[in-house]
Amino acid sequence: MKKVVKFGGSSLASAEQFKKVGDIIRADEGRRYVVPSAPGKRNSADTKVTDMLYDCYRTAVAGRDFKKKLQNIKARYQEIIDGLNLSLDLSPEFEKIAENFAAAAGEDYAASRGEYLNGIVMANYLGYTYIDSAEVICFDENGNFLADKTDEVLSERLKDLDNAVVPGFYGAKPDGSVKTFSRGGSDITGSIVAKAVHADIYENWTDVSGFLVTDPRIVKDPEVISTITYRELRELSYMGATVLHEDSIFPLRQEGIPIHVLNTNAPQDPGTMIVENTCSKPKFTITGIAGKKGFASITVEKSMMNTEIGFGRKVLGVFEDNNLSFEHMPSGIDTMTVFVHQNEFAEKEQQVIAGLHRAVQPDSIDLESDLALIAVVGRGMRRTRGTAGRIFSALAHAHVNVKMIDQGSSELNIIIGVENRDFETAIKAIYDIFVVAQI
Amino acid sequence: MKKVVKFGGSSLASAEQFKKVGDIIRADEGRRYVVPSAPGKRNSADTKVTDMLYDCYRTAVAGRDFKKKLQNIKARYQEIIDGLNLSLDLSPEFEKIAENFAAAAGEDYAASRGEYLNGIVMANYLGYTYIDSAEVICFDENGNFLADKTDEVLSERLKDLDNAVVPGFYGAKPDGSVKTFSRGGSDITGSIVAKAVHADIYENWTDVSGFLVTDPRIVKDPEVISTITYRELRELSYMGATVLHEDSIFPLRQEGIPIHVLNTNAPQDPGTMIVENTCSKPKFTITGIAGKKGFASITVEKSMMNTEIGFGRKVLGVFEDNNLSFEHMPSGIDTMTVFVHQNEFAEKEQQVIAGLHRAVQPDSIDLESDLALIAVVGRGMRRTRGTAGRIFSALAHAHVNVKMIDQGSSELNIIIGVENRDFETAIKAIYDIFVVAQI
Repeated sequence: MKKVVKFGGSSLASAEQFKKVGDIIRADEGRRYVVPSAPGKRNSADTKVTDMLYDCYRTAVAGRDFKKKLQNIKARYQEIIDGLNLSLDLSPEFEKIAENFAAAAGEDYAASRGEYLNGIVMANYLGYTYIDSAEVICFDENGNFLADKTDEVLSERLKDLDNAVVPGFYGAKPDGSVKTFSRGGSDITGSIVAKAVHADIYENWTDVSGFLVTDPRIVKDPEVISTITYRELRELSYMGATVLHEDSIFPLRQEGIPIHVLNTNAPQDPGTMIVENTCSKPKFTITGIAGKKGFASITVEKSMMNTEIGFGRKVLGVFEDNNLSFEHMPSGIDTMTVFVHQNEFAEKEQQVIAGLHRAVQPDSIDLESDLALIAVVGRGMRRTRGTAGRIFSALAHAHVNVKMIDQGSSELNIIIGVENRDFETAIKAIYDIFVVAQI
Repeated sequence: MKKVVKFGGSSLASAEQFKKVGDIIRADEGRRYVVPSAPGKRNSADTKVTDMLYDCYRTAVAGRDFKKKLQNIKARYQEIIDGLNLSLDLSPEFEKIAENFAAAAGEDYAASRGEYLNGIVMANYLGYTYIDSAEVICFDENGNFLADKTDEVLSERLKDLDNAVVPGFYGAKPDGSVKTFSRGGSDITGSIVAKAVHADIYENWTDVSGFLVTDPRIVKDPEVISTITYRELRELSYMGATVLHEDSIFPLRQEGIPIHVLNTNAPQDPGTMIVENTCSKPKFTITGIAGKKGFASITVEKSMMNTEIGFGRKVLGVFEDNNLSFEHMPSGIDTMTVFVHQNEFAEKEQQVIAGLHRAVQPDSIDLESDLALIAVVGRGMRRTRGTAGRIFSALAHAHVNVKMIDQGSSELNIIIGVENRDFETAIKAIYDIFVVAQI
């Protein structure tokens, strides 16, 4: 088994956390490639090293004294080094950083030092080979990530190494200047490394024991999803669930590499396995519930619209002309409703209405705002009769007025429209009927 | 109260039926304008007079002897005249018809004689003024109905008449040649007359006591709908319910004239009232259930489609380019399903698939056929929570696999997709939960 293991910031915030990580890595010799983030918060009042770096760099660029701030950052690392009893001196690195900050080496450079330095500490602690990501993660001169070139350079570099530490979040342009992925991009590095070494599994170590069936701000202590498909994950993520960084999923999915989301603070927990496909029967009929507020609906009514070839295309054309993407378009008989993001729609409302009148001469146009969309997602719904019945009965009992229902032939998800104010109640009701009632 | 009363073929099939009609008209002096159809079947083995006329005319045009056939038609009328003890002799009319048939006056002329002659009998029986529709229902030289001109001519003609009989189904072109509406078009005449006289109500007398909640071939003795809105009627009719002739509803709706559907054989039954709008609480949550078999679905899947402005418009554009109208387009996340008529789609299947690949480069395209769509329609659904829950629970209990759900913001109907073979089971289950369970 060849594993790539990525650790998030909270897993590496202190020497104590580093020790947990060390134990985890040493417990499985397959864990050969390690992608660390920068040290995160040690407690809720703490500051992430990356934020300290941004702040320090801005001070430097403003021409003010930044030495004290850089010293504080160094102290964070020194605390970890001391706690791990390592004989590692980061002073030369910090001198170079001070020089580069003074020379305004760029925000990307500044932000990347958190991972860069943490990688050095990690490699030293584990006795693994250290690879500066600037040498192996390639961007073009405009800052666009070069997937193919990176794959080539990285596979070549890693192919004869038994193990390695590759810091997350950054790479470099052809001129050697550092370029970062968007925030949270350590997962992108992790997935790139996993692809390059053809890993059997990509382990994503965080501070939670996997993905939750729904938002813990809405449902207290929701259950953990044991297995989720890439597709389900993508659907939940699209609908607002906080999961992995979007871009980080696709390289792994391309290669069919499963992701295992695990908790550094509770490594015995089973976590969540993300797979391309699985025959495993899910524990609950539904895999997850996610949703977003802030939609508006535009209902166009016209007698006999169904017999008018091109009607739907013309309606959607009006939204496109106004550069609006639409989320759903449920239709009745003689009515067609288009759901859009309310904030995008607001300023274009009158142009859209006028455009619709010109394009399809509707009998009437109805607007509704402050709507929320909820996606109930699950591969198990396909083989379980009555899922829709249970959802809508639950919503009725919870006094939620269902404004829209959309379920296509895929049967992998049902989209439900409700009023914003019913959003939380609706999610709770659906969670209760499928999870609480089934435990 | 000014009423226009239209009687269907079965209400006028025999002298006995004519007497019922006479009693009905005389029971209410508001029933001043009568629109009769041609005599229908007296029993299930009988032939409608209109069909006898078609047959007779074709024999005439083929150059064969049609006198015997015409004699049989005359006998049908004579039986009615004798049964009503009228001193009316239709011989001159039949001589003229024989002449015109021999001169190949046209199928429209032939078909229209059933109503023409029945109007004469009716006017004679009631003592009402007879108006040949050829004089008042106007078509242009290409056979297109002239609504405005007809309204003008007809109102002028009727304005000083206390009562009149205007036979249904036909009118004439500027050269005087007869032109019929499509089959079943007596209702069109009725609604045109109602509009012209600004009737308070349009009574449609048939052989059923109103519209049924659902198809009696699927559910035995379904309940009668007491009040239905034009819109609900249109929706049920679109989804396959056999109701009024489509074109006949719009002139009445334009004028806000309610339609009362009544049974000649049971005039005491309350029948169905069709209205523009009503506050009356419906007896059941749902007003009606209708549906059609023979749909196919095309599911297009593509990651991140929702963020691609113009995606839906391009998908529908492909169907439009192939001259296909679509029925519904439910969407999930990353999937969009388009429902089309299977017979129209079959021959264009490969062009559509190729067109979709070119237009939107989907990750995959899935086809499914032999699907049915069911519409559950009802203004009462808006104020009743839990309608969707009850529908889908009922379908689950009936072991029906729900392939598609579509409900827009109008909340006046829910469209459900099932497999063809589940069609009847699904309709029965929905009927049972809303009607049988509620009686």
